[in-house]
Amino acid sequence: MTRTATASSSSSGAELPAQAARTAVVDLGSNSFRLVVFTATPRWWRRTDEIYEPVRISEGMGDAGMLQPAPLGRALQAVDVFAHFTRASGLPAADVHAVGTSAIREARNADEFLVRAQALSGLSIDVLSREREAFYGYVAAVNSTTLSDGVVLDLGGGSMQLVRVEDRGPRSTGSWPLGAVRMTERFLGSEKASKKALKTLREHVARALVDADLGGAHLVGLGGTVRNLAVAAQKAAEMPEFGVQGYRLTDAGLQELVERLAALPAARRGEVPGIKPERADLILAGALVVQAVLRAGGYGAVQATEAGLREGIFLAGHVRGDPPLIDDVREASVHNLAAQYDHDDVHSAHVARLALGMFDALAARRVHPGDPAERELLWAAAVLHDIGTAVDYDDHHKHSRYLILNAGLPGFDPRETALVALMARYHRKGTPRGGFLRPWLRKGDEAMLTRCAALPRVAEQLERSRDQIVREARVAQADGEVRLELVADGDVSVARWAAERQGDVFERAFGRPLTIAPG
Amino acid sequence: MTRTATASSSSSGAELPAQAARTAVVDLGSNSFRLVVFTATPRWWRRTDEIYEPVRISEGMGDAGMLQPAPLGRALQAVDVFAHFTRASGLPAADVHAVGTSAIREARNADEFLVRAQALSGLSIDVLSREREAFYGYVAAVNSTTLSDGVVLDLGGGSMQLVRVEDRGPRSTGSWPLGAVRMTERFLGSEKASKKALKTLREHVARALVDADLGGAHLVGLGGTVRNLAVAAQKAAEMPEFGVQGYRLTDAGLQELVERLAALPAARRGEVPGIKPERADLILAGALVVQAVLRAGGYGAVQATEAGLREGIFLAGHVRGDPPLIDDVREASVHNLAAQYDHDDVHSAHVARLALGMFDALAARRVHPGDPAERELLWAAAVLHDIGTAVDYDDHHKHSRYLILNAGLPGFDPRETALVALMARYHRKGTPRGGFLRPWLRKGDEAMLTRCAALPRVAEQLERSRDQIVREARVAQADGEVRLELVADGDVSVARWAAERQGDVFERAFGRPLTIAPG
Repeated sequence: MTRTATASSSSSGAELPAQAARTAVVDLGSNSFRLVVFTATPRWWRRTDEIYEPVRISEGMGDAGMLQPAPLGRALQAVDVFAHFTRASGLPAADVHAVGTSAIREARNADEFLVRAQALSGLSIDVLSREREAFYGYVAAVNSTTLSDGVVLDLGGGSMQLVRVEDRGPRSTGSWPLGAVRMTERFLGSEKASKKALKTLREHVARALVDADLGGAHLVGLGGTVRNLAVAAQKAAEMPEFGVQGYRLTDAGLQELVERLAALPAARRGEVPGIKPERADLILAGALVVQAVLRAGGYGAVQATEAGLREGIFLAGHVRGDPPLIDDVREASVHNLAAQYDHDDVHSAHVARLALGMFDALAARRVHPGDPAERELLWAAAVLHDIGTAVDYDDHHKHSRYLILNAGLPGFDPRETALVALMARYHRKGTPRGGFLRPWLRKGDEAMLTRCAALPRVAEQLERSRDQIVREARVAQADGEVRLELVADGDVSVARWAAERQGDVFERAFGRPLTIAPG
Repeated sequence: MTRTATASSSSSGAELPAQAARTAVVDLGSNSFRLVVFTATPRWWRRTDEIYEPVRISEGMGDAGMLQPAPLGRALQAVDVFAHFTRASGLPAADVHAVGTSAIREARNADEFLVRAQALSGLSIDVLSREREAFYGYVAAVNSTTLSDGVVLDLGGGSMQLVRVEDRGPRSTGSWPLGAVRMTERFLGSEKASKKALKTLREHVARALVDADLGGAHLVGLGGTVRNLAVAAQKAAEMPEFGVQGYRLTDAGLQELVERLAALPAARRGEVPGIKPERADLILAGALVVQAVLRAGGYGAVQATEAGLREGIFLAGHVRGDPPLIDDVREASVHNLAAQYDHDDVHSAHVARLALGMFDALAARRVHPGDPAERELLWAAAVLHDIGTAVDYDDHHKHSRYLILNAGLPGFDPRETALVALMARYHRKGTPRGGFLRPWLRKGDEAMLTRCAALPRVAEQLERSRDQIVREARVAQADGEVRLELVADGDVSVARWAAERQGDVFERAFGRPLTIAPG
């Protein structure tokens, strides 16, 4: 897969930077077909378009393993739609990566489909082996979470893939016939599920996994089943929602869902808030398989990620290395967002530098604990504080919060993302508080939020001329009051007064008044 | 003022299109100094940055009309900050338009400030005459509202300017010494205001306006006083807020505010929700002046706009013509927003074309009233339906709503903006409803919303291959059911089925089932 600069050659749409390149991934799955477009520049990438077709190509395949005429017809028509799309948007074939997964891999008459699809669309469809499919899932997981040692679980309709990850590398890959469709058909009927049926299914999975390479501290889950369970668990816990990236679904949370789902006949499981009606029939079996893996490995929780096979395929072409690994997923996420929306990254980087300098100096003077995790969130918020100006200058602090929550920060969990969003929200005014995001916060988080809003606020004022004239704010005294001395390249009277006007929030954060003096 | 392509020559920040040009307006007002940066490409413009300094240069000027040493010092320091900013951001002097208004215009020692400011910053400050100041206000008003015949009111601290507008042109300009500071000092103390004091002030204004060229149907108000009153009136009416662009503040709403403000001593008027504490001392007099104009001209309401002097100066350089007039403010607003965020405007334009075609054909068959105002909102929503993909593909319909509400649509009032936002929100799924925006809707608006969500939904499905393969959807029958015939350039089976899947919302909107046939 190569990438070419096609976006700028099109006259349509919002002006993208000249080096913007688009690549499409066409994912011909057992349940649905999807075409996804990723746009990338040297500095950022984002999914920009998608077409979804609920093809259900596996319908009626059964034990004979034959694609049936009706689903085959639907599949070809969907491929035709995709071909129209790629031609219309000027995507050359070299930039379209089409893959087939389990149904196509296993169908005895897959060639009939592949030949006709290629004739129709010109797309050459790459039928992934189980190992390659698992590998792309692994690529998605390690580049969208902080998983270093543990397991990536990818649950599909027919099978489940597990990749044991060690030091971010793939140590082993396994595939088990434990997919949600298969487990549903074998162990669960269409009625309420008995305790016995649940137990039997769990034990079957546990036995199958006896030789699985489960280990490491963390379990990351990919795929629609895990994401849908995470949505439902978030809703059950009444958490404010902004996707499920990084959400940790605990064994207890899963158990609660299992019990609610099992008490309903399959057709009514879509009534459980968050469960998609089109997954209603499969979700219980999926939940039990995930729970069995979680218990067999002793993980306590499965962390959801919104990235999956399609992102894995894109990233395998976009990120260097073998395996393709983004150096620091969290740092990259922050830069990815800033590059899309921030119009003055020199300014933002300097605000971050000044804020971190004060953070460190105040920690050295024992004015606050100096937690490295807090420091990283402060850095992220300072880098992202102004991205909301892409929406409107007025209230841009609130727009920054919106963009951080909704564009998302892979590598951070929802609590951390909420904290970064709140720190950015309070970089200009207002009393820092959790507000509607409070359910995500832990004890002590509002105090941290106040510190991490106060420092960028002071830094923002020191940087109000946007020319980095204040090079450093040294902590000259930190007993009764905090006195900052400014190291600067010119007259900074206005910056000084403006920063001192943030004394209120500073004192609330650090318990002492702020004065600022020339260096 | 010329515009040059400076943005792309800087290596910092999000990648702007190559032709992006920035211009700065420096507004040295009596109360505050502001530097505002506008970024423009051939297809859109937006305010991208701002520095605000609460200088209060007029402090202590009194009858002697002399700028005092302390405010002069603050003013020069603010100018120094601005000069640092413009140098750091690579804005050449030719792209910085610095203007002074009443305090500087009237100060007997203004030259001392102007000479020192220029020496310090290199900025040449253009001291506006009352007429030119009024003209720029007029330019802002006619290009951010649909005002064609009426009056533009611009209320400052010292004076009030009125521009009589006829057929969008400026017919006459007048200036009266009726500014909020002056009226406060003359008629109102720091305590609660008596009925008598209110009456005396109103009568004074009415007498002064006896020869004013008031007429036409509409009154548009500029400036901080009008905006702040609009915010307070919105809050009093418990309307969901997304700025005050286009908000109509009625005489009754104004009267209610006047009574609440008058019942408080000046220092406590900031307690009225929405009133900025820094305006607390002046807001009552300002409200009374606005009310007097409104009554003298028999307008019934004053429409607020968020554009003002600074936008007027920018637009005078950006828009052709004498006077500089955007042809169609509403159409331009929609295109301005789409050009910033939409990545496939050929697709969006085609969805709009298909939706409007169905709208017209169904109106011709008397399936719905075919209101031209509804048609325009439908067009706007169809053009803007996908802009939310700039935030994230997932939930992009909700992000479209957010961007429309928050980036705003000058020329539309809040109800219309809310309707366009809701139509975009429901272009993919969900039952169209007002939700948190319902307070803005009138009787019948939810039925209109349902129609204007249903048509883009059907059109979006017909355009799912994004290549305009369905050229037209003709209404072939509209009695018991609505039957559409597709005029297309190829096989459109998938599009047909997908569009028919939107039958539910279509039937809710138009009271009859939908079937779709090849043409």
